[in-house]
Amino acid sequence: MAEAILKREQVRDYLLELIETHPAGAPIPAERVLCQQLKVSRPTVRSAVDELVNTGLLVRQHGRGTFVARAKITQEMVSATGSMSLPRASGTWSSRVLEHARIPAGARVGRRLRLSPAAEIHYIARLRLVDGEPMALEHLHVPAEAAPSLTLHDMESGDFYDRLREHGVHVRDAVQSIEPTVVNESEAALLGVPVLAPALLFERLTTDSLDRQVEYVHSIYRGDRYRIVSRLTLGDSPRNTVNVQARFGDDPF
Amino acid sequence: MAEAILKREQVRDYLLELIETHPAGAPIPAERVLCQQLKVSRPTVRSAVDELVNTGLLVRQHGRGTFVARAKITQEMVSATGSMSLPRASGTWSSRVLEHARIPAGARVGRRLRLSPAAEIHYIARLRLVDGEPMALEHLHVPAEAAPSLTLHDMESGDFYDRLREHGVHVRDAVQSIEPTVVNESEAALLGVPVLAPALLFERLTTDSLDRQVEYVHSIYRGDRYRIVSRLTLGDSPRNTVNVQARFGDDPF
Repeated sequence: MAEAILKREQVRDYLLELIETHPAGAPIPAERVLCQQLKVSRPTVRSAVDELVNTGLLVRQHGRGTFVARAKITQEMVSATGSMSLPRASGTWSSRVLEHARIPAGARVGRRLRLSPAAEIHYIARLRLVDGEPMALEHLHVPAEAAPSLTLHDMESGDFYDRLREHGVHVRDAVQSIEPTVVNESEAALLGVPVLAPALLFERLTTDSLDRQVEYVHSIYRGDRYRIVSRLTLGDSPRNTVNVQARFGDDPF
Repeated sequence: MAEAILKREQVRDYLLELIETHPAGAPIPAERVLCQQLKVSRPTVRSAVDELVNTGLLVRQHGRGTFVARAKITQEMVSATGSMSLPRASGTWSSRVLEHARIPAGARVGRRLRLSPAAEIHYIARLRLVDGEPMALEHLHVPAEAAPSLTLHDMESGDFYDRLREHGVHVRDAVQSIEPTVVNESEAALLGVPVLAPALLFERLTTDSLDRQVEYVHSIYRGDRYRIVSRLTLGDSPRNTVNVQARFGDDPF
C-alpha cells in the first residue's frame, strides 16, 4: 500500500508539472509514452490522467488527445490596511436570472431569516457567469418585507448589495460555510459540466445594519473553474493559531 | 426549467429541515410518504434523497431505511484580539503515518520548495483521524536540509509545527488553496468513503522565519465530515470589500 501511494504521487506530480509549465491547450504525451517515461503500468497512468480530467485540470478530446485546461478563476482573500477583505474573483462577472418568485419562506428558510414559515420571500435562482461562461448557480432568499420592490433588473445588473442599499438595506456581516459537493443533472446542464463533477457548495446568511437577516443564499460553484486562495500568518503564539492576512494577485501554485 | 428549479429547491428544503431538526440516527419518512406529503413524483424525491446521501447528510442503510447522519466537523475561522486565527477543528485529532521516504524533490515539488529537483526531501503520507475515525489524507513534503533528523514519531505525535520548532524551524506564513474534488479508489479505501465521494483538496506552501519554503502539503478532506465556516464583515466602503472577522463556536446553519 505504502509504495503504491508514493508511485501514484510521483505520476500525479509529473502530470501537474506538465500542466503548470505549459499553456492552456498544449497537448500532453499519449498514455503509452507516459508509461515508458515513468516506468509505471498503463492503469496507473490512466487513473492519474482520469483524476486530472475529472477535476478540470486536463481536457480530453475524443480522438484528438488530452490537453492542458485553462487556469481556474481564483478567489483570493486580501489584506488592505490590516482588515480582511474578499474582493470579487478575477474575470468579468454577470448574472442571468433563471427564476424569480414571491413564495412563503417555509420552515427552514424561515428559521434562518427569522420569519414565520408563511412570511413572503423573494426566491431567485440565478446563473453567475464569468466572461460570459457559467460559473455558479445561486439560490437567493430575501424577505419580501426588507425589499418589497426588488425587481428582476436588480438581480441582473451590477452588485446585488449595491441594489439592496438603494432599497435601504445596508448589509453588515455574513456567516458563510464551504463544503464540497458534486453537481446533479440539472445543475450540470446549467453549468455546462458533466453530472457528478466536483463543485463547491457555499451557504451564506447575511445580516444588515438593523440586525435583520436579509439574505440566505446557497450556491454551487464549478470545481473545474474556481478555487479559493488565502494567505495565512502562522504565529508562534498563541499555539495552533493561524493568522489570516491574505493577499491578492499572484498565485503561488 | 424555472419551475423545476423551485420544485426541487422546495423538496431539498423540506429534507434539510428534517435533518436539521432531528438528531443523528433519526429515520426520515419513506419515499412514498414524502411523495404524498410534498405532492411531487417519486423520481424527484429519490433524486433529492440521493444527493443528500451523496454529500453525507443522510445515511441509507440497505433494507432499513434512510437516517440523519452525524453533524460535520466544523473548521471555523476565529477572531482573537483583532487578528484572524484558524484553530484546530472540533474533535480529537491524531495521525497515522502511511509512508515516510527520503526522495529527490523532483521538478514540481522542487520548484515550490525552491530546491533543485535532485535535492532530498522527506515525503510523508499520513492519515489524519478525528476521534479515531479517518478524516483526511495528507501528503507532506519537507526539505531534508531544513529538518535532517525528522522522525516518524515527529509526524504522529502532537502538533507538527511544534515538532518542527524543536528542529529549529519556525513557521511564519503559508499560502493555502481550497478546491473541490472527488476521492479515487485508494483514497476511498483509506478514508472509508465510497469512490467518487465529494472531498476538499487543500494545498499549502509554508514559509519559515528565515524565509525558507519549509513545507509543501496537499491533502484530501472527507466532504461528508468536514466543512469550513467563516464570519465576514461586509463594509459599505470600500465597495465590494468583505472584511473577515470570524468567530468560533456556534453554527448558524
